Amino acid sequence: MPPGDTPPLALNRLSVYLRALRALQSEGIERISSQQLARRFGLSATQIRKDLAHYGEFGIRGIGYDVVSLRRRLEHLLGLDRRHAAVIVGAGNIGTALARFPGLNTGAFRIVAIFDIDPRRIGETIGDLTVRDPLELAEVVESTGADIGIVSVPAEAATENYYALVGAGIRAVLNFAPVRLEEVDGVRVKDVDLTIFLEELAHHLASDA
Amino acid sequence: MPPGDTPPLALNRLSVYLRALRALQSEGIERISSQQLARRFGLSATQIRKDLAHYGEFGIRGIGYDVVSLRRRLEHLLGLDRRHAAVIVGAGNIGTALARFPGLNTGAFRIVAIFDIDPRRIGETIGDLTVRDPLELAEVVESTGADIGIVSVPAEAATENYYALVGAGIRAVLNFAPVRLEEVDGVRVKDVDLTIFLEELAHHLASDA
Repeated sequence: MPPGDTPPLALNRLSVYLRALRALQSEGIERISSQQLARRFGLSATQIRKDLAHYGEFGIRGIGYDVVSLRRRLEHLLGLDRRHAAVIVGAGNIGTALARFPGLNTGAFRIVAIFDIDPRRIGETIGDLTVRDPLELAEVVESTGADIGIVSVPAEAATENYYALVGAGIRAVLNFAPVRLEEVDGVRVKDVDLTIFLEELAHHLASDA
Repeated sequence: MPPGDTPPLALNRLSVYLRALRALQSEGIERISSQQLARRFGLSATQIRKDLAHYGEFGIRGIGYDVVSLRRRLEHLLGLDRRHAAVIVGAGNIGTALARFPGLNTGAFRIVAIFDIDPRRIGETIGDLTVRDPLELAEVVESTGADIGIVSVPAEAATENYYALVGAGIRAVLNFAPVRLEEVDGVRVKDVDLTIFLEELAHHLASDA
């Protein structure tokens, strides 16, 4: 299976493994077995071995995986050894929070611009960014080489903003608007549904009762 | 395995299946096979059958699963057949966005209060809520029966706010602060790491190149 065909849930696991490996590396741990990884991070050892073997990564019996080289390999698989610039459309509460969110401006990612259609917002400063007119979108995407767009506009404006990002040359979109976007022109959309997290907590409350 | 021991990734899949079933129900589809579910939603049929069989749900050969009864069963497993009230601590951009977010005020969930330590914010209106003084936290949790807390304060204030929620009787916490919280007193924490979504998109960009 080529990397592009990785099912979303397996991909999600690669992100989880990557976080685990980074934590281990920061503690100075050089090697780890699938069993240790599983125990420490509440994962399944069989699943870990299966997922990693799928990408040609096999732990050495009695020795395990090399933490640093496996971390690098996962970063490569996840496309994190390249820089990605992202633009935000919609400077409301979510857009503003995202522009200021430290995690979105570290490692492989940089937020390079934020846009809002409200003329009163244009020119306003959010962190290091200045709110810009959406008319400048295509120009900004071209000059910054941005490949990721973040949609944080109301539901009814999400589709047109997604099309505007596609038209401007953006190649992947993270959608925080509470609506499902239909993919066009092969520009991948990831809808972020915050209720999933609440549902996970609700499950634990149900099983505690 | 009792429900409380469900691994987080399997739980995540149950949420995905539930969304798929709700979409099917809204289209008037009454029965679906694991193969159809898999094809339509980009999942694995084997994984679906395995996950559901784990909870005693077996599709009938040649007929498949009953959409409505499976949806109800998953809602029960996920604790969504009970009402959950949630309080938000921190009325900054993320807290304000969450208080206004329609998806967090539908179905099983209600946001019943929002708190902020800034005296200039207390009394301010956000949607249907009034920003309250954190000194009222325990009283509000008791009077509303809230069981979920949402932490949307800066990283350095996250731990003390988590402790305040635990002390007030909250039983599960969703943490949007960019810091990992250590669980105390069995009060489950779900850290929301928004960079995971960007990493998923980066992977697709890498495989397109």
